[in-house]
Amino acid sequence: MSKGITKKEENYSQWYNDIVKKAGLADHSPVRGCMVIKPHGYAIWENIKARLDIMFKETGHVNAYFPLFIPKSFLSREAEHVEGFAKECAVVTHHRLMNNPDGSGIIVDPEAKLEEELIVRPTSETIIWHTYKDWIQSYRDLPLLINQWANVVRWEMRTRPFLRTAEFLWQEGHTAHATSEEAILEAKKMHEVYTRFAEDYMAMPVIKGVKSENERFAGAIETYTIEAMMQDKKALQAGTSHFLGQNFARAFDVKFLNDQNTDEFVWATSWGVSTRLVGALIMTHSDDNGLVLPPKLAPIQVSIVPIPKPSEEIDKVAFDLKVKLEAGGYTVFYDTDDKKRPGFKFADHEMKGIPVRIAIGQRDLANNQVEIARRDTGEKVFVPLDNVVPFTENLLGDIQLNLFQRAKNFREENTHDANNWEEFSDIIKNRGGFVNAHWDGTVETELKIKEKTKATLRCIPLDGEVQAGKCVLTGKPSKRKVLFAKAY
Amino acid sequence: MSKGITKKEENYSQWYNDIVKKAGLADHSPVRGCMVIKPHGYAIWENIKARLDIMFKETGHVNAYFPLFIPKSFLSREAEHVEGFAKECAVVTHHRLMNNPDGSGIIVDPEAKLEEELIVRPTSETIIWHTYKDWIQSYRDLPLLINQWANVVRWEMRTRPFLRTAEFLWQEGHTAHATSEEAILEAKKMHEVYTRFAEDYMAMPVIKGVKSENERFAGAIETYTIEAMMQDKKALQAGTSHFLGQNFARAFDVKFLNDQNTDEFVWATSWGVSTRLVGALIMTHSDDNGLVLPPKLAPIQVSIVPIPKPSEEIDKVAFDLKVKLEAGGYTVFYDTDDKKRPGFKFADHEMKGIPVRIAIGQRDLANNQVEIARRDTGEKVFVPLDNVVPFTENLLGDIQLNLFQRAKNFREENTHDANNWEEFSDIIKNRGGFVNAHWDGTVETELKIKEKTKATLRCIPLDGEVQAGKCVLTGKPSKRKVLFAKAY
Repeated sequence: MSKGITKKEENYSQWYNDIVKKAGLADHSPVRGCMVIKPHGYAIWENIKARLDIMFKETGHVNAYFPLFIPKSFLSREAEHVEGFAKECAVVTHHRLMNNPDGSGIIVDPEAKLEEELIVRPTSETIIWHTYKDWIQSYRDLPLLINQWANVVRWEMRTRPFLRTAEFLWQEGHTAHATSEEAILEAKKMHEVYTRFAEDYMAMPVIKGVKSENERFAGAIETYTIEAMMQDKKALQAGTSHFLGQNFARAFDVKFLNDQNTDEFVWATSWGVSTRLVGALIMTHSDDNGLVLPPKLAPIQVSIVPIPKPSEEIDKVAFDLKVKLEAGGYTVFYDTDDKKRPGFKFADHEMKGIPVRIAIGQRDLANNQVEIARRDTGEKVFVPLDNVVPFTENLLGDIQLNLFQRAKNFREENTHDANNWEEFSDIIKNRGGFVNAHWDGTVETELKIKEKTKATLRCIPLDGEVQAGKCVLTGKPSKRKVLFAKAY
Repeated sequence: MSKGITKKEENYSQWYNDIVKKAGLADHSPVRGCMVIKPHGYAIWENIKARLDIMFKETGHVNAYFPLFIPKSFLSREAEHVEGFAKECAVVTHHRLMNNPDGSGIIVDPEAKLEEELIVRPTSETIIWHTYKDWIQSYRDLPLLINQWANVVRWEMRTRPFLRTAEFLWQEGHTAHATSEEAILEAKKMHEVYTRFAEDYMAMPVIKGVKSENERFAGAIETYTIEAMMQDKKALQAGTSHFLGQNFARAFDVKFLNDQNTDEFVWATSWGVSTRLVGALIMTHSDDNGLVLPPKLAPIQVSIVPIPKPSEEIDKVAFDLKVKLEAGGYTVFYDTDDKKRPGFKFADHEMKGIPVRIAIGQRDLANNQVEIARRDTGEKVFVPLDNVVPFTENLLGDIQLNLFQRAKNFREENTHDANNWEEFSDIIKNRGGFVNAHWDGTVETELKIKEKTKATLRCIPLDGEVQAGKCVLTGKPSKRKVLFAKAY
């Protein structure tokens, strides 16, 4: 099974594509830039979704659903938003097909042209704020804390499965508030929810920060981001939460009567994560044998392999372990397929990223033990039968923590301070990774750095020490170091 | 709250629209035929989805996700399918917008015309079977049991919230099998899953049957359907499961090597239910005071109202009940809003369809009792404090059963046999409801009956007695009575 995977060291990008294919995560489709999410890939997304949905509900949000289509004119309402989103998108111009009179197949019915073109949503701020106008009259209607799980389309030129696709699945939260303070708190709260999810469930350490003006969401006053380091030392933006001020309320004329009985524009946030997180998971933990998944998000957490094949005695032990582990809330797969040999099953389970594998051998049973392998390190140990359940439960917790710590160590080893331009460009060019450097705060400098090195300003970190200094490029004063890296 | 609802007897259609609006289920949108599903409506759909998803997984299915867009040429591949679906649909012709050079806003970039138009999926058989060609080589790859939760678009001329909308949410199962027998069993199994869901969860009795050739899904050999009676005595098709034979496998050239080592086309099924079920729920149980929901699908199952307002003593009892009921898996809402009076809350909870309401009055507490009201009948009883939890749990079960029985009685009262044309047209015209009548089995007769009465052949029932007779319209021989009704 693991044959056919390019080694990470040889070609990271090809290794990624091989994992996506061999682990059964996604497939190409006949539609440019759109992928098919295969069952194993979708099961990971379902786990991400289920957990996030709980976290959203625990923080007071409810789900709703808004139309797939946005009237073209809506996109122009918010001046910056139109620049950001009204470019590469799918445009619906007609609503009917017909048989070609020449008998050659079906064609678009020229009579069925829409009066106003519809855009397949690239994001839903515009249609949602148009709707909120009807829902919000007074401060009693606020806050409005709504999330949507949906598909969106952005006509990307260069696509890669999960990381950048024309259509992707995501959630988008859209909240409305009576005060600026409350909206900022909401944006920060969801930033923290994403951080907790990334670190505690994906086992992926992230840097929390705010985006520079240039990298902000189109229409936002402030964009909070979490940035993770992939194994090739590039950064990946894993989730963003935006404080939108009153921009969309102004654009769609959404006012409320405050408790002083005067009209005021409503304050807004939006926040989202997408199927891109599946790509982030792959590139944070996996290895040359295939996918490595944190136990908390793995569709199958434990596999059991009979050696060399099922027998009455092995079945008895296997089903007993399965029942006990499942009762503890774990998902267990007993691989009884007798057309496949153990070695093939081992490789297959490794490829799919099953965190713990229990091999039950006829001979080992005579010694009252089984062999347990952990996917993250490959280590194997013999465990006495009566200790298998607690050992496995504990091991799953261990793997979760180890993956996080391993990724965090990797990030720390590959994060550098650059104190002048020579150091900065040397690190970006020769070593890669995250670079903390002083920056003069201007878009101009940010763009020049990007032009010279392809590194972008990932974020202005919210944590860590703040010390003034001089911009690595211009030597002008800088309030604090910020984070640069090449990014996905 | 209940003010502003048209009475059912006066105007059923307006009553329906009023419920949708006042119970906060859906809203109109600026996009023709598309609705906004509001939080309460979406919460019902989430419950429907969660339960069906469990049933699909228990029957061996996994979820996956296929692209939103279908290349135009795909729709023409299956001859009948193209007739059924390549008509009213949303057509994407361009992939970019640009600023109008005259400064008047944004326009479609004429340079960004797609080589082949893309259709927003009206259903996904074509793109899925195109993909299955890559996934299926040998009988070892079969069966393939895949389901997709997605949005689809059909450009309907006349739309109504939930019942018929241009965009709707649904699930579509698409399975591939090595034999005709196995595919037929699968189609029947999912027919049974839908039946169980409708009756056991929605408390909506259904007639199981097969569609006539004329009413079959475009591309199917057999369409299994469940038909429910709404309160206005019209039929609603609530779910269908199709045996597709080898039609899509032929159209997309999907063959497998069977265990005799010869090539064979794959056998297929597809099956789906949609947000239409929310409309069916409304029209099966609700009344002039608002929504009535079966407890198993109600987003909130029990509400607690303090009379006249919260106090230390009432809070203590309320929280104790809430904790105990929630521990039993029920959802409980303690309505502490002190800006609203109890009467307003009662009407509001009735409007939203909360099955059980517990009113805790200061004076009743002195007598160690609370008042419990059931939404289905409106009955209220006083219950001693120490019996409230078991009483409520039992009542929820009672309501679930009562709703089913009430709907079943209603259907039975409004199902008639017609033995000749006079009876048939009289029932359809003057009494409404379901009519069992003999039919000669021809599309011609079926269409004539529809033309004369607007009644359609809902299904050829699978249960019930089978006796030969003569067609009510033509007098020609008929094998068995079939089910006619006016329908949504």
